[in-house]
Amino acid sequence: MTEDEIIAAIRPLTKGIGDDAALWQPSRSHRSAISSDMLVEGVHFTRDAMSLEDVGWRAMTANVSDLAATGARPVLATVALGLAPAIGIADVMELYGGFAACAAEAGFSIVGGDLSRSDALTIAIAVVGEVRASNAKSRGGGRPGDVLAVTGALGAARAGLELTRAPVHLRSELERAALCAFRRPQARLSDGRFLAASRNVDAMIDCSDGLSTDLARLCEASGCGATLESVPVAESAAAVAAARGEDPVRYALAGGEDFELLVAVRPRAFAHLAGRYAARFGRPLHRVGVLRAAPEIEWNGAPLERSGWDHFGGRTAFTPGA
Amino acid sequence: MTEDEIIAAIRPLTKGIGDDAALWQPSRSHRSAISSDMLVEGVHFTRDAMSLEDVGWRAMTANVSDLAATGARPVLATVALGLAPAIGIADVMELYGGFAACAAEAGFSIVGGDLSRSDALTIAIAVVGEVRASNAKSRGGGRPGDVLAVTGALGAARAGLELTRAPVHLRSELERAALCAFRRPQARLSDGRFLAASRNVDAMIDCSDGLSTDLARLCEASGCGATLESVPVAESAAAVAAARGEDPVRYALAGGEDFELLVAVRPRAFAHLAGRYAARFGRPLHRVGVLRAAPEIEWNGAPLERSGWDHFGGRTAFTPGA
Repeated sequence: MTEDEIIAAIRPLTKGIGDDAALWQPSRSHRSAISSDMLVEGVHFTRDAMSLEDVGWRAMTANVSDLAATGARPVLATVALGLAPAIGIADVMELYGGFAACAAEAGFSIVGGDLSRSDALTIAIAVVGEVRASNAKSRGGGRPGDVLAVTGALGAARAGLELTRAPVHLRSELERAALCAFRRPQARLSDGRFLAASRNVDAMIDCSDGLSTDLARLCEASGCGATLESVPVAESAAAVAAARGEDPVRYALAGGEDFELLVAVRPRAFAHLAGRYAARFGRPLHRVGVLRAAPEIEWNGAPLERSGWDHFGGRTAFTPGA
Repeated sequence: MTEDEIIAAIRPLTKGIGDDAALWQPSRSHRSAISSDMLVEGVHFTRDAMSLEDVGWRAMTANVSDLAATGARPVLATVALGLAPAIGIADVMELYGGFAACAAEAGFSIVGGDLSRSDALTIAIAVVGEVRASNAKSRGGGRPGDVLAVTGALGAARAGLELTRAPVHLRSELERAALCAFRRPQARLSDGRFLAASRNVDAMIDCSDGLSTDLARLCEASGCGATLESVPVAESAAAVAAARGEDPVRYALAGGEDFELLVAVRPRAFAHLAGRYAARFGRPLHRVGVLRAAPEIEWNGAPLERSGWDHFGGRTAFTPGA
């Protein structure tokens, strides 16, 4: 198969792919935003744990989640693929099916990309989005005293990963929830836009590398420390951890790939914002702690270990069963 | 080394890298454009033929050239890197030095990216640019009768590659020209903007995959065929081919990585445009042929072999010495 043959096959799943550059009309009243990610088979995913369609979905979701954390909505994506020798056109179609399904659900299109040979299947995605300038958030705006909160309970994606490695006996809806969180995670796009629209949200980041790592990044960028008070653990994560005799909180702190948003909110405004959030989304904005001036991050009276997934250095501290 | 350590090291070569998404204010009067590419060590480049700084320069240039072919000017880039185990921080800095030098010369910044482990050094770049809507060109606008022209003589990059494989005796300025075309190619940004501003330019594409491949792509997208009349061969390519007893025209047709632009121009306007071009740039716009309604591409009275570099299928017909 040649590059042009593959492009012909995937063209129906994209919009205008085939030219060297794709054009679009940016909104006049918004800032543009861009996020890019690379995923490598054997480093970020393995094909025994999920289908290539799931791999595609997750890869696209990770980029959408980065935009969600700025308050942006995605408008288009480009996808560059490095294809290992064993990959055929059907595999590429399956992968693109995942990209396109995620993009369609979030209301945008894949407009271009590139194809290359590679030893390991490699996915590089760039997603462009738009956000009203006054709404745009970053990880760096937090202030001492801000309440820290997350948009959902954590650890389910990690529980799903564990289930694909070694099944445990579980209620079927919990098993489904864990596997779905792992294979078909949802970026918190609507949540991100809602929270970004509030002047009382000072900073936002997604928890895709694990709460402990992403909280540390928010703190560092904001020049703050934090006290972590409580960590909401997904029911499915608690069940899997219990069945395996592990600490469920570690799934939530170090699990990664959860795609919940972590926000820093002005303390006086938190109760009101959390109420509006619950009314809008039908689920709570979970308070997890507070930012403070001292640079440490404290958890249960001790410094919090930064134990999330570092895609370059590898998982640094989380050891299943530890 | 961890992801955050590498980011700290390369931050001075970038603008605002470190957040999950980068924001910018798009021009109100322009379309935005995006191009993305993936380069893999061993497929697109080897480190014995050039420094990592050259690799970085070339990778960025390839994307800038894609934008040049639409008439756009680049405004920012994101870079996702897959780092092989043997790559250290000094290597990453060298590579980024090449990205940053190319970006600085073209007047834009690297605003974000991603780092991953990988078996082979892998570079995925997305460049965003801007172009006045009325100027934007694509490969698909050519019409039968249009004159085909290129912005410069071809084959020098291929000659440089050959020189790194097996040196031949050559005048030093020709050797320099060939090696420079291979290691530090220039995207035709100013040429692209100049040509795009003409209503008489119907289609534009860069020759980065070799004139025979890129001409075929322009023809296919435009629903035309072509007659290729003459192919301008770079002096350094002619010299290297002569020294090796090879056909210099094959360097030009199938060499690839030349980054000259191929344009289709209304026949009545060609002479005037070529005159303005020569006055503006001090070098000729080389007429190479003409588009025609019949779908074939003819060269020397026979169908033109599509012999350029297909980064997925591999070089399909060019065999040095053939």
